Amino acid sequence: MSASDEGTGDRRLLRGARSRAAILRRAVDVASLEGLDGLSFGVLATGVGVSKSGVQTLFGTKEHLQTATAEYARGVFDEAVVHPARATAPGAARLRALVEAWIRYARAPLFPGGCFWAANQAAFDGRPGPVHDALFAGQRDWRRLLATEVRHATGASPEAADLAAFQLDAVLLAANTALRCGDDTAVDRVRQVTEALLAPSGPDRATTVRQP
Amino acid sequence: MSASDEGTGDRRLLRGARSRAAILRRAVDVASLEGLDGLSFGVLATGVGVSKSGVQTLFGTKEHLQTATAEYARGVFDEAVVHPARATAPGAARLRALVEAWIRYARAPLFPGGCFWAANQAAFDGRPGPVHDALFAGQRDWRRLLATEVRHATGASPEAADLAAFQLDAVLLAANTALRCGDDTAVDRVRQVTEALLAPSGPDRATTVRQP
Repeated sequence: MSASDEGTGDRRLLRGARSRAAILRRAVDVASLEGLDGLSFGVLATGVGVSKSGVQTLFGTKEHLQTATAEYARGVFDEAVVHPARATAPGAARLRALVEAWIRYARAPLFPGGCFWAANQAAFDGRPGPVHDALFAGQRDWRRLLATEVRHATGASPEAADLAAFQLDAVLLAANTALRCGDDTAVDRVRQVTEALLAPSGPDRATTVRQP
Repeated sequence: MSASDEGTGDRRLLRGARSRAAILRRAVDVASLEGLDGLSFGVLATGVGVSKSGVQTLFGTKEHLQTATAEYARGVFDEAVVHPARATAPGAARLRALVEAWIRYARAPLFPGGCFWAANQAAFDGRPGPVHDALFAGQRDWRRLLATEVRHATGASPEAADLAAFQLDAVLLAANTALRCGDDTAVDRVRQVTEALLAPSGPDRATTVRQP
């Protein structure tokens, strides 16, 4: 929006949008440390210099604030991990680029409490509603992206690619926890699992199940 | 302890031990829902009909209460998942028995908030101290157990078995979250990953890394 667009109403809208972004940035930080349940209009108002009633006017309900925070965190993740990998060729190169971007992200967390998702998915997995949906929509799309690149790389069946994506996402989440505990060997493990899934006999092998 | 052992001092000790167990049982339930940070002497006193000062006398500090709660949760997990599998032969049979016991445990959670570990490890991964140590000692021993059975089953190298255990533990944790979201396909995925790791070319394959 250019300066000339900013009539009185536009200025108010722009101020509102800037406040909204500042509040959500702060909300993601708080929620990475204390969980989405730790968010309140009062805590966020103190953090960003907006009145409590101002925060409430912008977000309405706590549930809407939590949903908007989850969506904002997803945007930050996409910008740090998903978008940079678009420059690489689909398939193995892009899957490796995604994993390397993820490793950078996990090593230098964007949020003070570490992984926003790890801290909040466990808390909301048994609580249906819009906050739950916002938290898990991000994970579903992330797994789909991994599965797409596995298929491009290996020609695996959709089922095998989905299973590979499920495994890789699980290993990334576990590696995140390990890294937060100071266990840097998790990075090698992530790379080993990625390469194993990309190997010619990779993801489809897991579907040839020997029954117990 | 027989009835005849119960002198005044013994009775008091026994009462103390029973109160301790009742409080910890309640504490694990609360912490599975609200996290170990949600524990307080007051909340537990109300739940089990002991005075708040009585709870405080038994546990001293909140940190000690949290540590004891993590250790108690681990005992419950071992009894439900680890001990029953001891009846099976070491190796593939025992690994499958562990995984099947884990699936039963994840499908019918022992705690109202679902997986005690998933809810608390993410909250404590960046906070060193006795609570962190108690939470992660359980996971370390569980992974060692999985690695031991993978080695028995496949003759894999220690490194390959450790990586396989890391993968399997990661997939179990992710499957727990999926099950809590109503996605029952996670059970099949757990079994497929288990069988892939037990396959003759299984865990050692992941160590033949093709460098990017």
